[in-house]
Amino acid sequence: MSLRKLLVDVHTHVYLPRYASVLRSRSNAPRILTRYTPSGQSEDRLLILDDEPSGGRPVGAQYWDRDEKLKFMDRHGIDISFVSSANPWLDFLPFSEAQTLARELNADLESYCATGPSVVSDANFKRLYGFGLLPLVPGAPAESLPAAVSQLANEHPHIRGVIIGTRGAGLGLDDPALEPLWASLAETGLVVFLHPHYGVGAQAWGTRENGHVLPLALGFPFETTTAITRLILAGVLDRHPDLRILLAHSGGALPQLSSRLASCIDHDPVLLGRLAHDARWYLGRLWFDAVAYGAAELDFVSEAVGRANRYARGGGKERKEGSSRMLFGTDHPFFPPLGETEKWRSVVENLEAIEGVERWSEEEKAGVRGGNALRLFGLLGTTKMTTGTGGEGSKQ
Amino acid sequence: MSLRKLLVDVHTHVYLPRYASVLRSRSNAPRILTRYTPSGQSEDRLLILDDEPSGGRPVGAQYWDRDEKLKFMDRHGIDISFVSSANPWLDFLPFSEAQTLARELNADLESYCATGPSVVSDANFKRLYGFGLLPLVPGAPAESLPAAVSQLANEHPHIRGVIIGTRGAGLGLDDPALEPLWASLAETGLVVFLHPHYGVGAQAWGTRENGHVLPLALGFPFETTTAITRLILAGVLDRHPDLRILLAHSGGALPQLSSRLASCIDHDPVLLGRLAHDARWYLGRLWFDAVAYGAAELDFVSEAVGRANRYARGGGKERKEGSSRMLFGTDHPFFPPLGETEKWRSVVENLEAIEGVERWSEEEKAGVRGGNALRLFGLLGTTKMTTGTGGEGSKQ
Repeated sequence: MSLRKLLVDVHTHVYLPRYASVLRSRSNAPRILTRYTPSGQSEDRLLILDDEPSGGRPVGAQYWDRDEKLKFMDRHGIDISFVSSANPWLDFLPFSEAQTLARELNADLESYCATGPSVVSDANFKRLYGFGLLPLVPGAPAESLPAAVSQLANEHPHIRGVIIGTRGAGLGLDDPALEPLWASLAETGLVVFLHPHYGVGAQAWGTRENGHVLPLALGFPFETTTAITRLILAGVLDRHPDLRILLAHSGGALPQLSSRLASCIDHDPVLLGRLAHDARWYLGRLWFDAVAYGAAELDFVSEAVGRANRYARGGGKERKEGSSRMLFGTDHPFFPPLGETEKWRSVVENLEAIEGVERWSEEEKAGVRGGNALRLFGLLGTTKMTTGTGGEGSKQ
Repeated sequence: MSLRKLLVDVHTHVYLPRYASVLRSRSNAPRILTRYTPSGQSEDRLLILDDEPSGGRPVGAQYWDRDEKLKFMDRHGIDISFVSSANPWLDFLPFSEAQTLARELNADLESYCATGPSVVSDANFKRLYGFGLLPLVPGAPAESLPAAVSQLANEHPHIRGVIIGTRGAGLGLDDPALEPLWASLAETGLVVFLHPHYGVGAQAWGTRENGHVLPLALGFPFETTTAITRLILAGVLDRHPDLRILLAHSGGALPQLSSRLASCIDHDPVLLGRLAHDARWYLGRLWFDAVAYGAAELDFVSEAVGRANRYARGGGKERKEGSSRMLFGTDHPFFPPLGETEKWRSVVENLEAIEGVERWSEEEKAGVRGGNALRLFGLLGTTKMTTGTGGEGSKQ
């Protein structure tokens, strides 16, 4: 199999056994609790938030067992997965505990990947790589974070990035105290996977019973959109051009609101002259997972990335290939099918969405399925994958 | 000039003099207050929200004076405007006061339109039409609303719709008590212009000074997205197929999140079997202003509308022309230029965005600039405007 044909999942989660144990030991959310049905059967349920709808969600081996992850990958033809801890990560712990647990979980994840199988068609590739954790929790002393980043980058060869939420050390990601964190992440080349947890907008969901739909379908992408917008407005992307940020769920609403964002900035005296470029330019600096479940959505994200260069201050360079910044993902083990199916509908939808983008060439589609990820995470070394945009981001 | 070439603005606001007087009489937001500069000059400022950033915004004649509206229209080549009261409408008033003021303001607006000029090239058209107000405020008795709707539709021929916020009678627009309202709006054919006011997500804006950017660029479209999603989830669009809803700001984030929304619904046991169609189908039942400031955004919205029929339960009718549900708008008098300019940048951007959609024919672009609005608001009678989608929605 050509490397270009590998299917690579960059959005796939795990609650490592050590982490699941912590959740089981807790008496409030986030927690895993065991319920017993009237007939005496036990059922584990995960409560991520205190006001979790539907009494949480059922969880089982697919949340922590590596064999289940590999079975899922095999069933869907996924060659390589970049596995990340699922929310809420370490946010609920005091810094010292978060620091210790982050180190332990990163070592666990390194082992999870390193002792796993290799890709059959090319034994140079493992099937599992990971995003590590930082003790980036409320109250974390920001000056301690660069050391944690360095340790992660230096000691764990299969960990190629970090997954982070949106609260930073308690004041959000635009907290000026986090400058050393961004500098160290840019320096190491670790990919920052920005992922929602708390949702934004819960006070507007109303009182009707809508299950998890509003927090998941809207609150999650609103949160990601808000966080990356605040990073842009704070100049973080201007000051750290080497920072590599991957946005969950195709960037949420950022692409569709990006021209409105640019217009609002241009019409606000407070923002006058603050940013180096038009807001739309920054979309060309970001990466987007392809977890949007529709071809038109993916096509549009690639358009928003492709036009970005035209919005450089001082003007108009040519378009780039927007799809080169988009990466297949599944969100496994979330969105399981409601009934028995051979393949998960959520996965099939994301694959069909990629296949269905009429404006993408076969080469671009192959890039979104896997090649772009191999390049972003440095698995191709300095090898150029495709013309034009090849090699960009391959720093490791 | 061919009717097809008229430029029609469906998103343009006014604070009618009677309404501005009410705002001036108030001592807390929403209010208009007069400040004096150190040199003794007076300046009117509008505070829409209690925590308004930047001490509110400067306001002047363009907010209430009809001559200023017409001058703005002339300067930008706008033939016809569908003028609506700006937020927060009557939300801050008790029901009885809101009911009285709504009647008075609707009569004022009818006069504002009826006594205004006609289109030069066709005196059958006035240059000004309007969206009226309903006393849809917290605590409003829902059974009173159909009468208000009927009065508006019967007594004011230049008022072709209503503008509403997202709070309904206090419990949001998915409040079951509002069923008679939707029924009466569907019955009259009045267009419902759904517009944000409060924003969604303010608790996530953080502490950095970013002027109005986050509430306007993100909070507003998040609010519209949430409101229309709740309407869809409540089955309002299933039960009232004739209801005609126009979404502000191109539907906010709804198009980009629509496939995710469909997926979340399909994976949630609570929603199983509730809706008549896949979530994406409902986008084909809605109208979207073209106030998104970018060609790629408009192109994408039209794709999301165009694919909607494919998501009918039971399957796959062909695509429709998505642009037929999109309508030019300016958001005047908001987003004024920061300096002196001949034309407002915010208007030019929206016109250039329409011109820049490569996948639209010239006929489609003319439709978005004006023809679709003439058809939606019943100004063409039963005349079919364009092929294929012509006549749809022309009930009046």
